[in-house]
Amino acid sequence: MDNNNGTTLIVMSGDMDKVMAAFNIAIGAAAADKKTNMFFTFWGMKAIQKGNLTGRGLFGRMIGLMNRGGINRIGPSSFNFGGIGRWMFRQMMKNHNVPSLEELRKTAMELGVKLMPCQMSMEIMEIAREDLIDGVEEPCGVAAMLEKSDQSRQTLFI
Amino acid sequence: MDNNNGTTLIVMSGDMDKVMAAFNIAIGAAAADKKTNMFFTFWGMKAIQKGNLTGRGLFGRMIGLMNRGGINRIGPSSFNFGGIGRWMFRQMMKNHNVPSLEELRKTAMELGVKLMPCQMSMEIMEIAREDLIDGVEEPCGVAAMLEKSDQSRQTLFI
Amino acid sequence: MDNNNGTTLIVMSGDMDKVMAAFNIAIGAAAADKKTNMFFTFWGMKAIQKGNLTGRGLFGRMIGLMNRGGINRIGPSSFNFGGIGRWMFRQMMKNHNVPSLEELRKTAMELGVKLMPCQMSMEIMEIAREDLIDGVEEPCGVAAMLEKSDQSRQTLFI
Repeated sequence: MDNNNGTTLIVMSGDMDKVMAAFNIAIGAAAADKKTNMFFTFWGMKAIQKGNLTGRGLFGRMIGLMNRGGINRIGPSSFNFGGIGRWMFRQMMKNHNVPSLEELRKTAMELGVKLMPCQMSMEIMEIAREDLIDGVEEPCGVAAMLEKSDQSRQTLFI
Repeated sequence: MDNNNGTTLIVMSGDMDKVMAAFNIAIGAAAADKKTNMFFTFWGMKAIQKGNLTGRGLFGRMIGLMNRGGINRIGPSSFNFGGIGRWMFRQMMKNHNVPSLEELRKTAMELGVKLMPCQMSMEIMEIAREDLIDGVEEPCGVAAMLEKSDQSRQTLFI
Repeated sequence: MDNNNGTTLIVMSGDMDKVMAAFNIAIGAAAADKKTNMFFTFWGMKAIQKGNLTGRGLFGRMIGLMNRGGINRIGPSSFNFGGIGRWMFRQMMKNHNVPSLEELRKTAMELGVKLMPCQMSMEIMEIAREDLIDGVEEPCGVAAMLEKSDQSRQTLFI
């Protein structure tokens, strides 16, 4: 496997279906022995946060209220109808034995997928290092993401 | 044309404007003699379904009700105001002689663009093989999509 | 720096957060000496328009009313609650000394990022050449965008 065959995913969306697609692609890439990196930015930060807490300052808490953090609270990007979209989506996934987001994330990490938190997003949204799940990389910026991307065959903006 | 100059489009969105952009890019790539593949997943499945029917089981039918399938029922991703967005958008396209989604899809297929249905999405959304339009490839997974992507100069997540 | 190391960004979204992410990535790429092109299409056109005016014909004006143009009127893609999302987002950015969209755009242009307007979008949305800010490239199509993309290490659809 040469040096330029990696996969880089920039996850900006916090929508359940898109985050799920991102982890599925990452798992497929890692399983194919490609060096795989996911760079989480803006709303995508929810996918690597510990729980419901989003940010610490006033604005961070306001975002937290509007937009409860944590990988289990993410709704799909299309229709949500007061939560029914998420509920239905989960039932469908369960009925078809599709793994949950938490399981997908765990599998990705076990396969060596690197989870990179965006430093600027953490600053703007007032998210601290200890609000993130264990095992993520050091917070970094666009330059570090582009370095991985330059060694990749595909970089997706999700 | 070398082996690594293809174009791969992952179409997850079911929004009319994004699907339209996807077909326009695919047509441009195929016209430039690039091997072009479109992988349809989640809401993007609507773009290669026959009609209004989305799925067969209970959940599939519920999604079908909320989110009428078929390429002519797709609304634009921004503002929709009870369908007025779609109506207006279509009028504007008509006034400017922009081809419809169905025409774009036909042109893409005539130029050799391959339409790949995502097997997992079909299972989750309970969509059968015969619900898809004629001429699509065999349903496949992330691994098959990544193989095409590895032979591509650009892979877009739409 | 070889010929195939550029960065191409296709900006279709008109959401403030996504446009901001696009300019941040473009600035990072240009700062790393990569030839960087941004192709603005559909709602993304707002990011390179002069003011609030969107289009000239009847439909163009209707879109303009629903969807006020201009880089300062763009809301974030998630939650907006009657404008509070945008206000809050801007306050947070200000508090953390994050540059505004206008400043990001200026910086990108100073670093040599090329801004390419999509001709078809201008025709459909009835946007004239003089409605665009100074310093953008000649309006062009998918073929010209793909040419840049073929010389790029990463092409993102935003």
